[in-house]
Amino acid sequence: MVRVVILGQGYVASVFASGLEKIKKGELEVYGVPLGRELPVGIEDIEIVGSYDVDVGKVGKDLYDVVRSYDPEAPETLRGVTVRKGIHLGSLRNMPIEATGLDDEMTLKEAVEHLVGEWKELRPDVFVNVCTTEAFTPFERKDELERAIEENRKDRVTATQVYVYAAAKYAREVGGAAFVNAIPTLIANDPAFVELAKESNLVVFGDDGATGATPLTADVLAHLAQRNRYVIDIAQFNIGGNNDFLALTDKERNKSKEFTKSSIVKDLLGYDAPHYIKPTGFLKPLGDRKFIAMHIEYVSFNGAHDELIISGRINDSPALAGLLVDLVRLGKIAVEKKAFGTVYEVNAFYMKNPGPKEMHNIPRIIAHEKMRMWAGLEPKWL
Amino acid sequence: MVRVVILGQGYVASVFASGLEKIKKGELEVYGVPLGRELPVGIEDIEIVGSYDVDVGKVGKDLYDVVRSYDPEAPETLRGVTVRKGIHLGSLRNMPIEATGLDDEMTLKEAVEHLVGEWKELRPDVFVNVCTTEAFTPFERKDELERAIEENRKDRVTATQVYVYAAAKYAREVGGAAFVNAIPTLIANDPAFVELAKESNLVVFGDDGATGATPLTADVLAHLAQRNRYVIDIAQFNIGGNNDFLALTDKERNKSKEFTKSSIVKDLLGYDAPHYIKPTGFLKPLGDRKFIAMHIEYVSFNGAHDELIISGRINDSPALAGLLVDLVRLGKIAVEKKAFGTVYEVNAFYMKNPGPKEMHNIPRIIAHEKMRMWAGLEPKWL
Amino acid sequence: MVRVVILGQGYVASVFASGLEKIKKGELEVYGVPLGRELPVGIEDIEIVGSYDVDVGKVGKDLYDVVRSYDPEAPETLRGVTVRKGIHLGSLRNMPIEATGLDDEMTLKEAVEHLVGEWKELRPDVFVNVCTTEAFTPFERKDELERAIEENRKDRVTATQVYVYAAAKYAREVGGAAFVNAIPTLIANDPAFVELAKESNLVVFGDDGATGATPLTADVLAHLAQRNRYVIDIAQFNIGGNNDFLALTDKERNKSKEFTKSSIVKDLLGYDAPHYIKPTGFLKPLGDRKFIAMHIEYVSFNGAHDELIISGRINDSPALAGLLVDLVRLGKIAVEKKAFGTVYEVNAFYMKNPGPKEMHNIPRIIAHEKMRMWAGLEPKWL
Amino acid sequence: MVRVVILGQGYVASVFASGLEKIKKGELEVYGVPLGRELPVGIEDIEIVGSYDVDVGKVGKDLYDVVRSYDPEAPETLRGVTVRKGIHLGSLRNMPIEATGLDDEMTLKEAVEHLVGEWKELRPDVFVNVCTTEAFTPFERKDELERAIEENRKDRVTATQVYVYAAAKYAREVGGAAFVNAIPTLIANDPAFVELAKESNLVVFGDDGATGATPLTADVLAHLAQRNRYVIDIAQFNIGGNNDFLALTDKERNKSKEFTKSSIVKDLLGYDAPHYIKPTGFLKPLGDRKFIAMHIEYVSFNGAHDELIISGRINDSPALAGLLVDLVRLGKIAVEKKAFGTVYEVNAFYMKNPGPKEMHNIPRIIAHEKMRMWAGLEPKWL
Repeated sequence: MVRVVILGQGYVASVFASGLEKIKKGELEVYGVPLGRELPVGIEDIEIVGSYDVDVGKVGKDLYDVVRSYDPEAPETLRGVTVRKGIHLGSLRNMPIEATGLDDEMTLKEAVEHLVGEWKELRPDVFVNVCTTEAFTPFERKDELERAIEENRKDRVTATQVYVYAAAKYAREVGGAAFVNAIPTLIANDPAFVELAKESNLVVFGDDGATGATPLTADVLAHLAQRNRYVIDIAQFNIGGNNDFLALTDKERNKSKEFTKSSIVKDLLGYDAPHYIKPTGFLKPLGDRKFIAMHIEYVSFNGAHDELIISGRINDSPALAGLLVDLVRLGKIAVEKKAFGTVYEVNAFYMKNPGPKEMHNIPRIIAHEKMRMWAGLEPKWL
Repeated sequence: MVRVVILGQGYVASVFASGLEKIKKGELEVYGVPLGRELPVGIEDIEIVGSYDVDVGKVGKDLYDVVRSYDPEAPETLRGVTVRKGIHLGSLRNMPIEATGLDDEMTLKEAVEHLVGEWKELRPDVFVNVCTTEAFTPFERKDELERAIEENRKDRVTATQVYVYAAAKYAREVGGAAFVNAIPTLIANDPAFVELAKESNLVVFGDDGATGATPLTADVLAHLAQRNRYVIDIAQFNIGGNNDFLALTDKERNKSKEFTKSSIVKDLLGYDAPHYIKPTGFLKPLGDRKFIAMHIEYVSFNGAHDELIISGRINDSPALAGLLVDLVRLGKIAVEKKAFGTVYEVNAFYMKNPGPKEMHNIPRIIAHEKMRMWAGLEPKWL
Repeated sequence: MVRVVILGQGYVASVFASGLEKIKKGELEVYGVPLGRELPVGIEDIEIVGSYDVDVGKVGKDLYDVVRSYDPEAPETLRGVTVRKGIHLGSLRNMPIEATGLDDEMTLKEAVEHLVGEWKELRPDVFVNVCTTEAFTPFERKDELERAIEENRKDRVTATQVYVYAAAKYAREVGGAAFVNAIPTLIANDPAFVELAKESNLVVFGDDGATGATPLTADVLAHLAQRNRYVIDIAQFNIGGNNDFLALTDKERNKSKEFTKSSIVKDLLGYDAPHYIKPTGFLKPLGDRKFIAMHIEYVSFNGAHDELIISGRINDSPALAGLLVDLVRLGKIAVEKKAFGTVYEVNAFYMKNPGPKEMHNIPRIIAHEKMRMWAGLEPKWL
Repeated sequence: MVRVVILGQGYVASVFASGLEKIKKGELEVYGVPLGRELPVGIEDIEIVGSYDVDVGKVGKDLYDVVRSYDPEAPETLRGVTVRKGIHLGSLRNMPIEATGLDDEMTLKEAVEHLVGEWKELRPDVFVNVCTTEAFTPFERKDELERAIEENRKDRVTATQVYVYAAAKYAREVGGAAFVNAIPTLIANDPAFVELAKESNLVVFGDDGATGATPLTADVLAHLAQRNRYVIDIAQFNIGGNNDFLALTDKERNKSKEFTKSSIVKDLLGYDAPHYIKPTGFLKPLGDRKFIAMHIEYVSFNGAHDELIISGRINDSPALAGLLVDLVRLGKIAVEKKAFGTVYEVNAFYMKNPGPKEMHNIPRIIAHEKMRMWAGLEPKWL
């Protein structure tokens, strides 16, 4: 059994919940779940036991009703979990959504205690953080993080940072838990949180779930690097119509995303080829689909100039939701292994910005094999 | 020192010769040469000592003059090698080229002896076969191959097959040599030739140099497979304007190419997704550049349908020529290692159809690491 | 009222029938119908009174049941028309379909009389020919056509040619009718049929409905021509999964299609730029969608080389079906105008190969305005 | 004879000058010049008599030396014109260029008189404005413009606005001149300038030369509109590496560009389909080439959803420079016709934002025909 609490019941979490139930009912293939049925922990063993959000239109509603607004074919078996009020701290600022958070009613310290109290009833094994992209500042030092909570510095911390802090407190009390950070806020890359996790029996996976164009770019760049082709420049555009893209029209949030993706170029090529890689625009009718376009120029043998153009139309939320089906199971396995802190082997495949901080991107195709071996599976091609 | 004999002094061989000299003179970066300066055998150590062709416009000409017709910036240091008459056997049939071959003047057996005689003077370490794509039938059994030569069956064997036969004879006499088969004719995938090579101190690398869209397709398919995305269909088009594309308008030759490429889909996905992967057309003004277009549809999590479109404008000959700079050095290394027969670790990265016959395609990104280790280099990401 | 008889109840005809009924019931917007509600003849006035096919799985069935196999949301109001047996003459040869035709049971002359007899009961105003692409030879001379029917030359004529011959006979008897030829068989471009039509009170529109990449290519080439950019080469690929693409894997049929499309380049650029424009492949899972890819290189000012790459995923049958909603109404109008023979103004916009034979392709954007004026509508931008 | 003064001797002006001389010397085809040799005024008749810039690295240099820095193959016949100091007014603000302008040394009124004085010596027929994109505010009323100059409001006017004001003064004195505004600053769309031009014997063509993706988008949208396909959304990205793209990273300038392009959607579709059309990024190694990517989704018949993806690699400056070869000749013709004020027929084809203000975009393919007729040429397809 893998008991899951969702933090941020938006598009990704709803597709995750819906697809999960369909697979459990035998109505859906496991496509998009990298490890499918290979793991010792079954997909059938995953259970969503709690869900948190700050959208007043969601808090207090039944999970089924929220999920159905994203996926009309969501199974009724989702009924029975009520969406609870979570941490806001401005995470929906500038979004066309009315928000309410525990932090509107109490201090951060009280909010943390409130959450830990609820979780001791819900008894989750794994937390899945899929909040809206936040503007944030990493802490680097654990004592600074602790002081910010202590001093109720609501301008300094984000919802995600508070959730991890609370999860660590909870893990210490119950003996172990995992936190999957699928958004760009640095957690597995922030030494403050990794240290906190290690000493609290918490596993953190992160940061920023590796979906969309980025992991493909990683493999394409690795492909060019292995042929010693010299990349002249890379342009990559993304445009989408869901709330995540809307949030990125907010300049500060966009910056955090940009930071994440750019490191890939240097990590994989070995030099910092000039690049323009950004989530660029919001176009409402695209909805959850995104349109990506990538242009790469490189020098081949004898000075020849070649060019690749990659376009894609990709459903944004399912790509991440499918990864979550693995990540919650790997979280459970990591807790069993007592791999507290963070696990690079998992992050390197599943995350855009694999923690810990000092580690780099490697080709996803190789990361996949390393991750399999970490999880006790045979590599496929090694 | 790596002494090289070229078989088929066309576009690829000429770009190889020209680029090689420019690198030796310090005028060109090693871009497009996968192992660059990492191998113990230097690029400066490579020397072209002989060249064969059947185009009456080339036979008897100085190598420099032939190369310059493909690359006006070819260095004069290429002077001093005369292009010799090779084996024809209809390999330029239906091409707008007047051809002449040793086989027009003598039996196959005599031609083989003629070649071996010349080679004993030229003392090559490695043969590089970059003839025009041929229509061929594999032999499977070594005795059948031997009988065909013996009985002068000019309708049964192709130029490439005769060249390998002669190279084996030469290798047995001088103690070792390598044969790089960069065209689709099955050599490293034909047990007849692998057996012959093993017992003759010959290393064969093959078949069909992995350039253009195919290796990229391999890595993209591996990328999808690792995420358990279900590929619905794959369409891939290629169009180019060089003689290789002109040759492929000949139906039989095209078929051999098609055979090569299609196995990739099943090898990498694990199932035979419906696909249409063909070199499609000839369009003269494209010259040595090719235009490729690929369309892949797949199912992601929760039944979502995604789509990738990859287009490229790629210089055809430099892509292969850059690989040859590695392959001749790896050929020399293999001979030193006495790795007679064929070497899957090398073929899996450099060849579209990696021999031996029973071996499959693996993701290029992983093949690269295995090849590095075979060659005594550190893996880069493993 | 526009009474329509369909010849070839396949994908296009079924989408036409289904969409038409949905519009009549107020369930569907008129998107994809170029003249929408602008024509004096309303879409509500169109009625399908008969349908012909040679697929044994369709003949004798109710139209609703056949249409529903292509569009599960087809309205029940389609009930009441029975699909009748038409002319075969090998038009489904090599297709995985069991076929039966009037010509299996009687001479061509008898079949023509049989059809005319049925039509005099059905009283159609317009025939819509959407048979599978045929291999054909134009007649050029009317007497040769007449002789072929007379002498029962089943190897010389195609189903389409017999249908037009019968339609002419019918039109002469009832005083007027129109025949929309939406497939590549030359009718409006064959002087034999245009002459026959003129003297028989028949209007023919044709040939080959202008859907897919071709009309877009026409406008893009016109765009380049107007800027005096010199087109170096054009490559265009199409791949699809419906029966029309399957039929084109038959070499002879493919040739007829190729002929149609290539004239566009010279007509619009003023010179025959090297091009490769072909429906290329069949890939079953694509179904009715097609994937197109186009690559155009051209010279701009000061010798600069530019490049355009156009890709598309297009639903094949709806694109043509939408045009048919206009064409049947324009057919009725043409009969009222007594515009017997063929009408270039209509063909130039709606057809890939606009008849009569001596006329050329013009940019679609201009053809549209001319067509509007012919139909009595205001031009939009002139 | 057409005597030309250039305002802004950057990439576009230099390619214009270089290509013009090559054509005059018979070394270059007229590709990229829409009307080629069709106009009564020959390309040989165009002469560059003056050039202005504010880059300290250009002012005082010979035109040949400046042009050669953009096009190494520029003909020496360009020698003999010295680049003069023009108006700055912050037009290079935030650019990595040291600038100097007449306005640094004198009042606006004095600068205008200085320019008119020089022009009365140079006797230009046509001014070509290809300054860097400016942040600007339109005037709307002529008296406000006059007051701003009078009161030396250097914060209110831009270089382009001062140049037009001076050109009007010059035209009044000499009896006629033309001003081609190829940048986004509203001139032909600003009633203040159109009124000024009319009463001063000045012809203004503008605004914003129609190059790159925009005119192609216009024709593609017209293509869809004519088929009554319902456009769901349009995303268009541009990225380039020349100074014009660098300037657009300045937020205010970008806004002026955005304004220009967006009107196209409504003008051509008849409704304001959701769109994201922006020059997006700067990527230095692209240099003068730009990479464009466009994604259009639309509804076809029977509710089918189709998709077009258009990518291009386009040389930015030659595209505009080729248009200028026509525009200076049409300017001369307009002066001869006394078509003072602005000429919609010319603007509609050559400009992204065709003035006057109240006029709209029409399909370029139709605009071309109207422009031909205005210029006394036969239409090509009408």
